[in-house]
Amino acid sequence: MKLHTPLCDLLGTRLPIIQAPMAGGTTTPALVAAAAKAGALGSFGFAYAQPEAMQRDVEAVRALTDAPINLNFFVNAQPAPIPPESQRGAIEAITGYYQALGLPAPAPVRTPYAPDLNAQLAMAEDIKPAVLTFHLNDLPADRLKRLRARGIKTGGSATCVAEALHLEALGVDFIIAQGGEAGGHRGTFQRNPYEAMTGTLALTRLIVRAVNIPVVAAGGIMDGAGIAAVLALGAQGAQLGTAFIPCTESGSPPIHKQSLLAARDDTTVITEKFTGKPARGLVNRYIREMNASDAPQLDFPAQGVLSGPLRAASAKSNQGAGNPDFLAMWAGQAAPLSREMSAAQLVITLEHETLEALERLAALRR
Amino acid sequence: MKLHTPLCDLLGTRLPIIQAPMAGGTTTPALVAAAAKAGALGSFGFAYAQPEAMQRDVEAVRALTDAPINLNFFVNAQPAPIPPESQRGAIEAITGYYQALGLPAPAPVRTPYAPDLNAQLAMAEDIKPAVLTFHLNDLPADRLKRLRARGIKTGGSATCVAEALHLEALGVDFIIAQGGEAGGHRGTFQRNPYEAMTGTLALTRLIVRAVNIPVVAAGGIMDGAGIAAVLALGAQGAQLGTAFIPCTESGSPPIHKQSLLAARDDTTVITEKFTGKPARGLVNRYIREMNASDAPQLDFPAQGVLSGPLRAASAKSNQGAGNPDFLAMWAGQAAPLSREMSAAQLVITLEHETLEALERLAALRR
Repeated sequence: MKLHTPLCDLLGTRLPIIQAPMAGGTTTPALVAAAAKAGALGSFGFAYAQPEAMQRDVEAVRALTDAPINLNFFVNAQPAPIPPESQRGAIEAITGYYQALGLPAPAPVRTPYAPDLNAQLAMAEDIKPAVLTFHLNDLPADRLKRLRARGIKTGGSATCVAEALHLEALGVDFIIAQGGEAGGHRGTFQRNPYEAMTGTLALTRLIVRAVNIPVVAAGGIMDGAGIAAVLALGAQGAQLGTAFIPCTESGSPPIHKQSLLAARDDTTVITEKFTGKPARGLVNRYIREMNASDAPQLDFPAQGVLSGPLRAASAKSNQGAGNPDFLAMWAGQAAPLSREMSAAQLVITLEHETLEALERLAALRR
Repeated sequence: MKLHTPLCDLLGTRLPIIQAPMAGGTTTPALVAAAAKAGALGSFGFAYAQPEAMQRDVEAVRALTDAPINLNFFVNAQPAPIPPESQRGAIEAITGYYQALGLPAPAPVRTPYAPDLNAQLAMAEDIKPAVLTFHLNDLPADRLKRLRARGIKTGGSATCVAEALHLEALGVDFIIAQGGEAGGHRGTFQRNPYEAMTGTLALTRLIVRAVNIPVVAAGGIMDGAGIAAVLALGAQGAQLGTAFIPCTESGSPPIHKQSLLAARDDTTVITEKFTGKPARGLVNRYIREMNASDAPQLDFPAQGVLSGPLRAASAKSNQGAGNPDFLAMWAGQAAPLSREMSAAQLVITLEHETLEALERLAALRR
């Protein structure tokens, strides 16, 4: 028995499963290659990657497999200089944490504090991955046309029906319906993100009913039962992020992996305090205290530059064992279903579980 | 082909579908009887009903069908007197709306402002419905034992794993996993309700994996694809509320029905301003303005008594056509999938759609 949807033909993958792009070191070449070789769409979260790093990472994958892969980018305004004096409040709000971790006092964020999206996309056109997806906003129609003219399939994230219809009109090949359960950054770009937290079950069905292109569901999917569920909703595929974080090959800090594996209930919350944009992660001291304070923050992604040393130091503290207090432990709401295995094992397990779930469902008709 | 899960045997229904209890006039005897006759579990939302009204409504159903029905109650502290002077701020906050609708100035809320739960449950024991479910808190283990000793199957709402485990330990027959998508009141009783908004897809799977009794999923389910999805997650049934509101037999105001049928995206938000407890409904002027204000409110359910005349007047304004501005238009996040049909038609449609979805899923294995 094989699991197949038309999305597999579109993406060139064996399975209708996308290992979600996760920026910030999680999606190592080893993870992407393992997921891709096992039949999923391996994806790089290149939001914060410079073109040379992109090239190096993709070459590392291509040395291991010629399976299709996906490059993902954050679409955001060109980072403008931020006057140091206007950063004072945001810096003061986290200076105590810097001290607690034994770090030198934080300095104002200076340009360039984020890679240039046009340079990233130019490199992506050279790399010519099978798939390119984007997050946080739309891409111009002419850019999508150029990518598609190079044979690259494109997908964009929508958190409401209006965004999905907008992306379809721009000319993407597929929509990623990012449900409220999803870990990491909310992709909302046309609404107040706090009013666009529609759960994966509702959102997937709403978008499937609204558009005429394939829909991939994301958010809270951790096993084959979850994949079968979104296929039931009419999605042609499932994108899983959190499930891949504890994988052997993932570059997430061990304390992040351990915290996911230890979760027993949904303890995720939304915070803007790590990067300047709302994102879902396991609650910890930093999120609890910063969400409760009315301290100012820098805009995305500058706030992420400010919190970066804290996150790095937190991951390495305790003689390398790590400390969850200041780490951005992005996680979806089904985090307690996390499992420790290799990415290849996970993909094969997901495949078998999905087939089992479909078989179990067939038996409900009698 | 028939759709069947073990929950059908437990509840005595033909289908694993529950027409959700909805308090405040929506679940008329005609609606409950029609849903029950068609094979779903018809449910009365008796939260605000006095025992005599319960008896009258159930007799009206029993004159039409002997199919199993469900009585649902809100579990809340015995309503205590509220000193009029401490109500001043809450009254001032809505006095302008009273004036705008031509109502006399609001008066302080006096006891008894809610039915006595013990009297309701005593009447329920007399009525002896097939099923009794409860919301907003737990019921004591001895009460559950008594209900079950009378042959009544019991179910409680959980919004997180901890609540589900707690209810299972108390001795309920099944758990209703109330996902974040759900319309109406959040059932959270062990956590901050704003941190227990786990989406239906994630929550259902988490609870199914955690407990050993049947799970019914609720929240964002509007059609057979949604039902098939939660069955894929391991739920044994689906509870649908919003889907039944536009039904011919539902007692919801026509403007509420029309607003659901007109929805094109998820425009629901959570508000405490109608009743004192967080509940999800279609955003309107009252919610927008009251959520944005820092005006005080009375505790649940007294705030509902205060807002009652506003809601009633809003439903009847415009020469009876109604005005959505001050109405509590409870709705789940998949409200745009609302359809206008009779309850019997809806149940049969849901059955056929679910079977179709299961068939479509079977074809993905090849």
